[in-house]
Amino acid sequence: MSKVDTLIESAEITNDRTGEARAGGGPGPASARRYRQVRSTSERLAAPLSAEDCIVQAMPDASPTKWHLAHTSWFFETFILAPSLPGYREFHADFRVLFNSYYQTVGAQHPRPLRGLLTRPSLEQVRAYRRHVDAAMEKLLAGADGASPDLATLTGIVEIGLQHEQQHQELILTDVKALLAGNPLHPAYREAAGRNRPVADVAPLAWHRFEEGVRWIGWEGEGFAFDNESPRHRVFLDAFELASRAVTCGEYLEFMADRGYERPELWLSDGWNEVRAQGWRAPLYWQREDGAWLVTTLAGRREVRAAEPVCHVSFYEADAFARWAGARLPREEEWEVAAAGAPVEGNLLDEENEGDLDASPLHPLPAPAVRPAAGRPPIAQLFGDVWEWTASSYVAFPGYRPPEGALGEYNGKFMVNQLVLRGGSCATPRSHIRATYRNFFPSPARWQFSGLRLARAAT
Amino acid sequence: MSKVDTLIESAEITNDRTGEARAGGGPGPASARRYRQVRSTSERLAAPLSAEDCIVQAMPDASPTKWHLAHTSWFFETFILAPSLPGYREFHADFRVLFNSYYQTVGAQHPRPLRGLLTRPSLEQVRAYRRHVDAAMEKLLAGADGASPDLATLTGIVEIGLQHEQQHQELILTDVKALLAGNPLHPAYREAAGRNRPVADVAPLAWHRFEEGVRWIGWEGEGFAFDNESPRHRVFLDAFELASRAVTCGEYLEFMADRGYERPELWLSDGWNEVRAQGWRAPLYWQREDGAWLVTTLAGRREVRAAEPVCHVSFYEADAFARWAGARLPREEEWEVAAAGAPVEGNLLDEENEGDLDASPLHPLPAPAVRPAAGRPPIAQLFGDVWEWTASSYVAFPGYRPPEGALGEYNGKFMVNQLVLRGGSCATPRSHIRATYRNFFPSPARWQFSGLRLARAAT
Amino acid sequence: MSKVDTLIESAEITNDRTGEARAGGGPGPASARRYRQVRSTSERLAAPLSAEDCIVQAMPDASPTKWHLAHTSWFFETFILAPSLPGYREFHADFRVLFNSYYQTVGAQHPRPLRGLLTRPSLEQVRAYRRHVDAAMEKLLAGADGASPDLATLTGIVEIGLQHEQQHQELILTDVKALLAGNPLHPAYREAAGRNRPVADVAPLAWHRFEEGVRWIGWEGEGFAFDNESPRHRVFLDAFELASRAVTCGEYLEFMADRGYERPELWLSDGWNEVRAQGWRAPLYWQREDGAWLVTTLAGRREVRAAEPVCHVSFYEADAFARWAGARLPREEEWEVAAAGAPVEGNLLDEENEGDLDASPLHPLPAPAVRPAAGRPPIAQLFGDVWEWTASSYVAFPGYRPPEGALGEYNGKFMVNQLVLRGGSCATPRSHIRATYRNFFPSPARWQFSGLRLARAAT
Amino acid sequence: MSKVDTLIESAEITNDRTGEARAGGGPGPASARRYRQVRSTSERLAAPLSAEDCIVQAMPDASPTKWHLAHTSWFFETFILAPSLPGYREFHADFRVLFNSYYQTVGAQHPRPLRGLLTRPSLEQVRAYRRHVDAAMEKLLAGADGASPDLATLTGIVEIGLQHEQQHQELILTDVKALLAGNPLHPAYREAAGRNRPVADVAPLAWHRFEEGVRWIGWEGEGFAFDNESPRHRVFLDAFELASRAVTCGEYLEFMADRGYERPELWLSDGWNEVRAQGWRAPLYWQREDGAWLVTTLAGRREVRAAEPVCHVSFYEADAFARWAGARLPREEEWEVAAAGAPVEGNLLDEENEGDLDASPLHPLPAPAVRPAAGRPPIAQLFGDVWEWTASSYVAFPGYRPPEGALGEYNGKFMVNQLVLRGGSCATPRSHIRATYRNFFPSPARWQFSGLRLARAAT
Repeated sequence: MSKVDTLIESAEITNDRTGEARAGGGPGPASARRYRQVRSTSERLAAPLSAEDCIVQAMPDASPTKWHLAHTSWFFETFILAPSLPGYREFHADFRVLFNSYYQTVGAQHPRPLRGLLTRPSLEQVRAYRRHVDAAMEKLLAGADGASPDLATLTGIVEIGLQHEQQHQELILTDVKALLAGNPLHPAYREAAGRNRPVADVAPLAWHRFEEGVRWIGWEGEGFAFDNESPRHRVFLDAFELASRAVTCGEYLEFMADRGYERPELWLSDGWNEVRAQGWRAPLYWQREDGAWLVTTLAGRREVRAAEPVCHVSFYEADAFARWAGARLPREEEWEVAAAGAPVEGNLLDEENEGDLDASPLHPLPAPAVRPAAGRPPIAQLFGDVWEWTASSYVAFPGYRPPEGALGEYNGKFMVNQLVLRGGSCATPRSHIRATYRNFFPSPARWQFSGLRLARAAT
Repeated sequence: MSKVDTLIESAEITNDRTGEARAGGGPGPASARRYRQVRSTSERLAAPLSAEDCIVQAMPDASPTKWHLAHTSWFFETFILAPSLPGYREFHADFRVLFNSYYQTVGAQHPRPLRGLLTRPSLEQVRAYRRHVDAAMEKLLAGADGASPDLATLTGIVEIGLQHEQQHQELILTDVKALLAGNPLHPAYREAAGRNRPVADVAPLAWHRFEEGVRWIGWEGEGFAFDNESPRHRVFLDAFELASRAVTCGEYLEFMADRGYERPELWLSDGWNEVRAQGWRAPLYWQREDGAWLVTTLAGRREVRAAEPVCHVSFYEADAFARWAGARLPREEEWEVAAAGAPVEGNLLDEENEGDLDASPLHPLPAPAVRPAAGRPPIAQLFGDVWEWTASSYVAFPGYRPPEGALGEYNGKFMVNQLVLRGGSCATPRSHIRATYRNFFPSPARWQFSGLRLARAAT
Repeated sequence: MSKVDTLIESAEITNDRTGEARAGGGPGPASARRYRQVRSTSERLAAPLSAEDCIVQAMPDASPTKWHLAHTSWFFETFILAPSLPGYREFHADFRVLFNSYYQTVGAQHPRPLRGLLTRPSLEQVRAYRRHVDAAMEKLLAGADGASPDLATLTGIVEIGLQHEQQHQELILTDVKALLAGNPLHPAYREAAGRNRPVADVAPLAWHRFEEGVRWIGWEGEGFAFDNESPRHRVFLDAFELASRAVTCGEYLEFMADRGYERPELWLSDGWNEVRAQGWRAPLYWQREDGAWLVTTLAGRREVRAAEPVCHVSFYEADAFARWAGARLPREEEWEVAAAGAPVEGNLLDEENEGDLDASPLHPLPAPAVRPAAGRPPIAQLFGDVWEWTASSYVAFPGYRPPEGALGEYNGKFMVNQLVLRGGSCATPRSHIRATYRNFFPSPARWQFSGLRLARAAT
Repeated sequence: MSKVDTLIESAEITNDRTGEARAGGGPGPASARRYRQVRSTSERLAAPLSAEDCIVQAMPDASPTKWHLAHTSWFFETFILAPSLPGYREFHADFRVLFNSYYQTVGAQHPRPLRGLLTRPSLEQVRAYRRHVDAAMEKLLAGADGASPDLATLTGIVEIGLQHEQQHQELILTDVKALLAGNPLHPAYREAAGRNRPVADVAPLAWHRFEEGVRWIGWEGEGFAFDNESPRHRVFLDAFELASRAVTCGEYLEFMADRGYERPELWLSDGWNEVRAQGWRAPLYWQREDGAWLVTTLAGRREVRAAEPVCHVSFYEADAFARWAGARLPREEEWEVAAAGAPVEGNLLDEENEGDLDASPLHPLPAPAVRPAAGRPPIAQLFGDVWEWTASSYVAFPGYRPPEGALGEYNGKFMVNQLVLRGGSCATPRSHIRATYRNFFPSPARWQFSGLRLARAAT
């Protein structure tokens, strides 16, 4: 059902990226440093968890932390070490199946809903597996001098492996949150970071206008991007307006108070069926207790804060809220046009060093209030805080072609029955996101850090 | 799950259409004739069926013929007679709920999967209901002189009611086919029409090129169209090529012979799951018997004919076939650009008079072969034969707004998790289809007359 | 899931019964008269129904009336005519599968949940099938002179076919009731018979004592019985007491008023799960409307009458009521000991002639009130009104052996996960029931005419 | 679904048992020693497992080891310490709900299928919980002098708690087996004990005859028994014969070779449906590999051994095998009559001291071969090796009454839709089993150590 590993660099872009890496003096040392940093971030994310926390699968859509730790290593072993490091010895023959997510070309897969039954290998053995893979990767990266075309290609695949692991870092957080939130003892993943404290004020919502015309969309150039962000192509957009920030919990509480969950005319038909079948009455992780709305965060339960972006809503809820508000969700092209020039900054997962990680809020924060004298608020929160549901179905860009081989097997194959989300969240590693990045989930999904921003036609 | 009644004329277009009707000398006599013709077509379609055939519901997605006959009458009663004909007396108070499909604004609905349990009212009572509604409609239409704005609006709604009934005429055929095909006795709905006989030759497949540029898409102008076809708007299209005809059974047999149903790399992930879960090995209604492929048609079972368009395939199968063929499905805008200037002709349901109906093949026919001297075959089969799956998700056109009130309740609400089909089928009434017409079904649906046409990027 | 055709005469008993028939002057004329009477009763039961009513299957546990009419004919064709009438020509080769209920030895079966999709053969064709079978049976029965052993055996099988058809007569009534009760129009199967009118008084409940000891249980002797009623065998019973009549709606309303459906301590664990999963709050076919409890009967909806036996309760509800009442359900052996000497009389389906059938109440009636002077009320309602749930699982009697061949295939095979019911109901043909008769249904079943009688240990 | 905690001592028997304990010099020291031994056995059973192994729930029918360890402590806390030890402080208020299995009288329960999501409290915290409860129990048991009636009653409840914990010891083994058997790495719970090695010979099967007559069944007297084993009562039994040992894997392989899983006539109807729905082709934990049958044991995978009793079969399989063998399953009363005088010895879980536990085979062993000169083999394997499915539904004995209060809530409530098993298995603690012991599981259950012994009518 899910499709988390799917973002693969296309062949051309690999070359671009490799060129850049070469310009930087050879992939060796630079890649090795980045490799170590990304790999250690995964382990630091697992550090607050017990072995018990790491094995349990909260639900079929989620995976155990241990599985994430093993699968990301499997990725390097399968796509880099086994084919490219002479004399590499597989850590364990059965891991080929156990930690294959969905690569049919590679072979069979342990059934996804049963990932949580794998008490063996132990967490300690998986850590040994990581060390085994890391040692081999260090060797490979040290030896790489970028001189041969093979190594250039290899460096591209290494970067795919690292980007892949960053996706699983976000999933570790969302899946652990799902697990702990289902525990009646309300355990916290860790204490709240300093930055994550109550804020009363939020910037008022303003509209930003964009004119009609043919616009270029999608990735092209140096650096890394996944294959589904390309090719860069033209679209025609009518004039539109975009809200200056994400929808807040306070605004969402108004929707709820206006019987938003009880009025079928606000909902898509499938959404209304889901509301009734699941008994939805509020975002995921909200509970009503003693007249107050509480929310489960990675730092435990506390009151809902009006100024914060609403989070953990499905596409159906985002769409219904927008209709109630007299607006609509943005198309993904509109979002990208607005974000094209903006710097990648915001409430993201800081991974540069250990202190940064600890200081990451791991929860959406209010958009910074602006001084009245400052005039219309600028567009804020494009990156970080919450993934923003768009009105766009996840389909191939015109001219899209998946790469050859197993690594290319899996992007096109998820291009149906999902919606695009843009901009990253408070759980997205900072070096992982960009304006062209396309995330995608099915319309009922709520366990990701998903919220929304309003759009409307320009008058 | 299904969403067949959803296509509603927007307010502006109603006015356009009404203007035309007025120009034609008042809606009265013309509308009355058309009203009679459409209504009698429904009854003629039900004529070969017994009361038993008419009550049974083949599956939750389908409805009983009796229900179709009643629901289309309910539509006129609810949206025209009850509000607009002074002194109109409802035929039966409970029908308001029994035959409401999904109009939440109107009130409660009898549960869709239980439509087949309504042995009462009897078929005869439903026919009396139709006569009751028809008598009132005749009265209303006779009195209408088009002079007042109300009557002008009314005429627009009458036309919606008639277009709505035409949609249900196609559904009567697809739902009866599903019912009879599930019967081990292989009963036929009726004998094969003269035109529907074996043809050995089919036109070879040729490619037609369309240049890049900004194109206008969607409905605007006089005549009738549903709200989801508007507003007319611009899109940018890269250069593309479109196949000259639909994919044939012969071509599809090659796909099957090449193990098309056994190779995951050809399928979308959801599609592959469906193939395994449902055990798909061929299009719906195909069975292997004594080494031959048989197909159930509305005229009974017989051998598959290679020259005929393949039909009753899901979006997943259409998409997998296109990938296997090294091509792709067209975007709906590409299809519309190609069809924009073409005359609406082809293998459709002929409804003008009783003889026409009997002569309608009710099964897709081979594209006419062309003489070698004639050069490249023209684009054929755009209208009729099979609905053509497109690569486009069913979403709102930019600037789309549903009409006010109950009649507008239901178009936007189906705009998620469905794919657009274009062009009509052998079961679509001829006066019901046009180049901008957007049909839509979920990706696994197979019981409609659905096939495909290939597209590819222009080189 | 259900198991209605299962009751087959064992070999020994066949001989007994045949002996008796011989004594009566040969099976010929007598059997023919009985054959005609039983067969015509089925048709008279279907007479108030339209073809539409006869084809629809209310739920997977139920079957369409048309299917009942065909299957009972299939039984004679398959087990008597095809093997034993020289030159017999099958009516339709496909009927062998279409109307086989569950006889694996005979071959494949049309899937039970899809019986309602068989709009062909038509009801008229099924009636022709019945006439075809009847004509052949008349020929066979006329020729039978009982002189040869084969014919003696045959006469036994004919009686099985007739008893089998009588079981389906009760099922026609229960399945049609399920169908019509699900229709929001509340149609009646037919008008209430004269005897079925409100009665205010009911006999007070009295207890009858039975002493401990070894008792003989099960069938032995002349006349007909099913194989699961034998062999006759000994059981040891502790002293017990049995209530003089069935539990009434009035008593059941007290249970409901005492929050019987809300107190887990009154229920078996499986029963409590069912209460919550199904939302049970009252017997099947009861609805609360404007402060009153209404009940759907075969003569339409009306108020619940306190004096009538409660009906359409599951084993779980019967068991919970008994616990609430400080009593228990009787074991089937206790019931049989009490009924052993009693005449078979009561509110049953009268089938002797057409007038009788019309006069049958088709609904449980109050136990006749007794004059205070008459002393303790006798044991009433043992036969008819409602099937009485017992505390006994449906298992084989000691020494039980199913007969050889297809006819013997199906009794033993249902002997798990079902409970025994005793005594027949208002829908059971009068000549079909006796003290040793064992009916059986799964614990959640409610659509049969099932009620209960209390028992307790003797003090 | 399952119902493992249900066996509760009735009030009278509590008194009997207490009397005996008093006779032994007061419950204090003796009970304390037994308490310590039973409690430590649970911990020793968990010792080979990691924290990961202990938290995961193999399937909804099974529970995590950690949950078993906590729930058994909850039992002492809830039913003894909280009500009876002055000043007792609950370990954690939320545990009242978290570790309540199904005692509705006590209050809400954490949903059974979600037991495996409780990564908190940690295994270490649960061990602290056990120590907390143990310290309080030691205090209570030390203070108990048996002089007051309350303490006498208390001692009875302590014994219930210990017997309850012994049931969960067997479940720890069966549930861990289910978990490890689902792991593609085939991990072992521990090494095979010395006694568990291949044996070629098995005693030939002989029949033992028992005469007809009234027999006393059920528990009465001194010592402990659960409430569902009483009251002792009379039954009448026809003469029967019982096999001298359990059915072996070798015999079961013959059944399989004779297409036992493909012949519907051998199966109960529900069983046949299960065979097809589940694709059963062999006992649970058997896999066909390279032409050999392998079996997963608690000591890992190895070849099936013909001489060992067949194990992990459902009631359906046991019943089908017996039918194929021309025999039947014994009634529970027949089994009890045969076992009444036999010593409780055999392949059980030895728990007296640590060395014993390690020497327990934890897998069924072949019945000891007998010297030809020794004549007919005696009845063997009545206790231990495999639980023996009987033909008897699990229902109340005549006159059965559950005890008052929460402790009595749950025995009667499982008395439907289950079958009785007798005799204990290789995973049953030796001091836990006796001739009157009634175990019970639903007919499809296979994950218990369940096998069968044949019976037949005496000729």
